[in-house]
Amino acid sequence: MSPSRSQTDETRGWIVPVGGAEEKVGHPRILQRFVRLSGEEESRIVIIPTASSLDETGKQYEDLFQELGAQSAVSLPYRERVDTDRDDWLEALNDASGVFFTGGNQLRLSATLGGTSVATLVRRLNAKGIPVGGTSAGAAILPEHMIAYGGTGGTPLAGMVSLAPGLGLTNRFVIDQHFRERDRLGRLLSALSYNPFAVGLGLDEDTAAFISPDNVVRVVGSGAITVVDVSQLSHSSIAETREGEPLCMTDVRVHILPHGSRFDLNTRCATPP
Amino acid sequence: MSPSRSQTDETRGWIVPVGGAEEKVGHPRILQRFVRLSGEEESRIVIIPTASSLDETGKQYEDLFQELGAQSAVSLPYRERVDTDRDDWLEALNDASGVFFTGGNQLRLSATLGGTSVATLVRRLNAKGIPVGGTSAGAAILPEHMIAYGGTGGTPLAGMVSLAPGLGLTNRFVIDQHFRERDRLGRLLSALSYNPFAVGLGLDEDTAAFISPDNVVRVVGSGAITVVDVSQLSHSSIAETREGEPLCMTDVRVHILPHGSRFDLNTRCATPP
Repeated sequence: MSPSRSQTDETRGWIVPVGGAEEKVGHPRILQRFVRLSGEEESRIVIIPTASSLDETGKQYEDLFQELGAQSAVSLPYRERVDTDRDDWLEALNDASGVFFTGGNQLRLSATLGGTSVATLVRRLNAKGIPVGGTSAGAAILPEHMIAYGGTGGTPLAGMVSLAPGLGLTNRFVIDQHFRERDRLGRLLSALSYNPFAVGLGLDEDTAAFISPDNVVRVVGSGAITVVDVSQLSHSSIAETREGEPLCMTDVRVHILPHGSRFDLNTRCATPP
Repeated sequence: MSPSRSQTDETRGWIVPVGGAEEKVGHPRILQRFVRLSGEEESRIVIIPTASSLDETGKQYEDLFQELGAQSAVSLPYRERVDTDRDDWLEALNDASGVFFTGGNQLRLSATLGGTSVATLVRRLNAKGIPVGGTSAGAAILPEHMIAYGGTGGTPLAGMVSLAPGLGLTNRFVIDQHFRERDRLGRLLSALSYNPFAVGLGLDEDTAAFISPDNVVRVVGSGAITVVDVSQLSHSSIAETREGEPLCMTDVRVHILPHGSRFDLNTRCATPP
């Protein structure tokens, strides 16, 4: 949606939003695949736990990624905006072969990192091929247009969702998480009703969208991804509907995609497993 | 804020948001300057009156631009999303040397044009050098992050403003209009608190920001532009503050700039007339 942005950018790294509560013991296939994309036994994963208010979150993911065979896994606990000036942390980030944002509150991520050299560096890393992922709040922050918070329920209401600028790795997708568990179809539709140019990805828990450099979404995990495609939308009533009233949206296309399915943004085609 | 987007793009056209209620008789210097940028007596201006619910708005601006010496001024009254498929209108748009969005409701613009070939074409035109402007709602739609609606007052409250994706001509600015007249500093600050990467431009009525291809803002008109620069922000409490409660924001820099002033986005320096 920007004049100077190319439609596909094959040198970009993978973008990996996870719906939250991904399996961490037993068969943690989402995190395992993230390690593989990051270089397997040569991977140097940097964890950004800023969304979380718990001190142990960073350490937990350090241990997880190391158990999964990463060469190194280091968390950089940015708390305040002034922390983003730390040169040693910027150097560690610059050397990452994969970057992962933990869960928590996505507004803590955007308010702490937005407009700083950390946000710029993560975008640069992804642009040159480094995979960037995140779970829950860490998934929400990845695109240009982030769902900050919103209401619950299956049908969209005017004013039901609040958007904020995210990290800006892609503006082709709007991401929602804990999707089935927290009944969020309504708020995702509401977010898309404002300006039907993006594709909605509703991620169930323990389910990830592995978005390739050429914008093909691969579904990995025990739940499903609800893809909401409004490219054929013929009407959205958002300009006329009063706050709290149901929206009118016609010709929305939806795909429910479990593990092994794909969605190709370029052709708008979904492929079952 | 996007990996594949260049920081400055000197081939881009001017972006001209107007704060609404610009002078139309007597000395209409904002519209006159827009005609000059569009090619003076060779200008072919296309007006998009979609934001307005009044049938006569398009015709009014046709007359205005013609009186000001444009070679042609044609309005394309897109009402429903299906209208965006009209080939004759797309051809007229493609031939424009300047594009202008009228006022009304910015959600009517985003919901009707978002994701369509009209939005794509306007971005392409601007990317190759064609000036794109708009007044009131037509100003709000221009950037990537648009203020959809919000509350009134000088201090920011959590949840006071609703953002939506706009046309995406620039993501470096967040624009608000009728700024002094409707007391909107609070909602502009609130919009910037989410992710302090953009610069806020609060446009008084009859006042325009002429944003050059190299991102220098020139102020034209009888009011002022309030530039809100959060690049040095040391704290934003948006992640912790409850809806309706006052936000904490520290180290916000503000410039109040009347006619003849400039603000350079690259150096973050303001220059008085």
